[in-house]
Amino acid sequence: MLSPVVLGIDFGGTKTALAAAGADGARLGSVTVRTPVEQGAEAGLQRALGAARELLGEVAAGQRPAAVGVATIGVPREDGVELAPNIPGWSGLALRRELQQAFPGAEIRLATDVKAAAQVEAESGALRGYDPGIYLNLGTGLAVALVVGGRVVGGHRGASGEIGYNLLRAADVGRPAADRVPLEDVVSGRALGSAAADLLPEERGAEQVFARAAHDPRAARVLDRFLTELAFHLVNLANAIDPQRIAVGGGMVRSWDALHGRLRQALDAAVPYPPQLVPAAYPYDAPLRGALGLGLSAVQHRSPH
Amino acid sequence: MLSPVVLGIDFGGTKTALAAAGADGARLGSVTVRTPVEQGAEAGLQRALGAARELLGEVAAGQRPAAVGVATIGVPREDGVELAPNIPGWSGLALRRELQQAFPGAEIRLATDVKAAAQVEAESGALRGYDPGIYLNLGTGLAVALVVGGRVVGGHRGASGEIGYNLLRAADVGRPAADRVPLEDVVSGRALGSAAADLLPEERGAEQVFARAAHDPRAARVLDRFLTELAFHLVNLANAIDPQRIAVGGGMVRSWDALHGRLRQALDAAVPYPPQLVPAAYPYDAPLRGALGLGLSAVQHRSPH
Repeated sequence: MLSPVVLGIDFGGTKTALAAAGADGARLGSVTVRTPVEQGAEAGLQRALGAARELLGEVAAGQRPAAVGVATIGVPREDGVELAPNIPGWSGLALRRELQQAFPGAEIRLATDVKAAAQVEAESGALRGYDPGIYLNLGTGLAVALVVGGRVVGGHRGASGEIGYNLLRAADVGRPAADRVPLEDVVSGRALGSAAADLLPEERGAEQVFARAAHDPRAARVLDRFLTELAFHLVNLANAIDPQRIAVGGGMVRSWDALHGRLRQALDAAVPYPPQLVPAAYPYDAPLRGALGLGLSAVQHRSPH
Repeated sequence: MLSPVVLGIDFGGTKTALAAAGADGARLGSVTVRTPVEQGAEAGLQRALGAARELLGEVAAGQRPAAVGVATIGVPREDGVELAPNIPGWSGLALRRELQQAFPGAEIRLATDVKAAAQVEAESGALRGYDPGIYLNLGTGLAVALVVGGRVVGGHRGASGEIGYNLLRAADVGRPAADRVPLEDVVSGRALGSAAADLLPEERGAEQVFARAAHDPRAARVLDRFLTELAFHLVNLANAIDPQRIAVGGGMVRSWDALHGRLRQALDAAVPYPPQLVPAAYPYDAPLRGALGLGLSAVQHRSPH
């Protein structure tokens, strides 16, 4: 009998990452495809499913996955994905049903990407043994996950850590969402990239803003607003949690020096017991590792039949 | 043999509350004395110890307490109390040693007042069965406690929930403490009382500001700033935690209607899954109940000898 194969999928705002592993967790192969945001949710899902079948054909030909673990932006529910504004149409996607149809017989496990990533960091990464810990995700969007006693805090509706919805300033109190700008529209990879596109039409992407800030005052101003707002909310969150360590994951970790300097100084100036601040152990693929881990735990905990 | 007696003391910024109970938790008596802030920490402690001896003399004459549970502003350490600016000199007070000398042979247990209060609310009050829960204390100072899985989150250095140290605005990022105003200086009973004293020299106290706001535009402005800043930080905290319920304790609960209206509206306008918002079950004496509980658990868990 063949050893079961497990599939992990991380649906992100700019790319979808996939990996297959044996039941022992050894990775058999992985692939990343761009999320075609402009074509909507269904196209993104179909591209990911195509890539999944191709990957499985290569590393486990003829086998169906025993389990599929999924990390997604937003909070997965039975009939859709809530709090997922970064992929148009994603909110209406019945992710579990679609995956169940695509992989009949497989156990399907879903989690919010940032929480799946934080669980990996808590179990075997930069937050292992640190209590409490904060996982700060600086990717396309913005969110954190809180780790208390080694476990990620889910929240009452699975929405803890969704600080992208934070109010920017006291003047926004009581205003409806349409009349104000939430934090994620200022502090996120998407926001930084879009500010860059406005100011520096010749360049694109958050990473370029970091690179240019040293010699271009326009980029420096954009970056300064980003880092200041991020630091403000991170300081206040650290006061609420008193974390031992903050681990940062997501694509922006590529610009760690600039991030670290400003955040470190802000924490030291304002938090009574300043926490450690480190890059995550798996800054770019913790959500995919988390997705695989969800699939593996489904296989390992499955009762025999 | 006499049943053991347990003493609970709640050292607050304006008053010290004391209670004695039997080992079964039944309260034998209680008393409250003013904290003579202007005379410093040692005088406050001595006044409390005098009241404790008097109380014990009345309800358990001739007996030494088997345990003393203490709730205090700030974070108690062996050589002092950290983060306790509201009583001058309190930071240098070796509370455990002083209490041990005053009550030889007694088990001494210390906790931060807001955390002791939240534990009581989580075990038998307004947060029982609500996960996660936030206990918001609006007393002389400002702090919250987070309840996850029925237990108060302590934080790495016992300082979780100390949002009185929050930055008020992004412009304060990176500034040393001396060059900015922390949240507690705007949002607390002390802050509201002091704003009232400036604007309305004929009146004093936070409660009066609430009472006058309906017909006095000066009081209304002071109250508006207070409620707006409080709501701003509470909304952002709720986004981070996704609580099922927020329970409010402390003296300001006496002005619940005004508090509730503004905070309710702010949460509904900005938090993806707005939590319940209720007064605590024991808004005025949860810290004292928590202190007694600490003492009782020391007696109940004491190994026989």
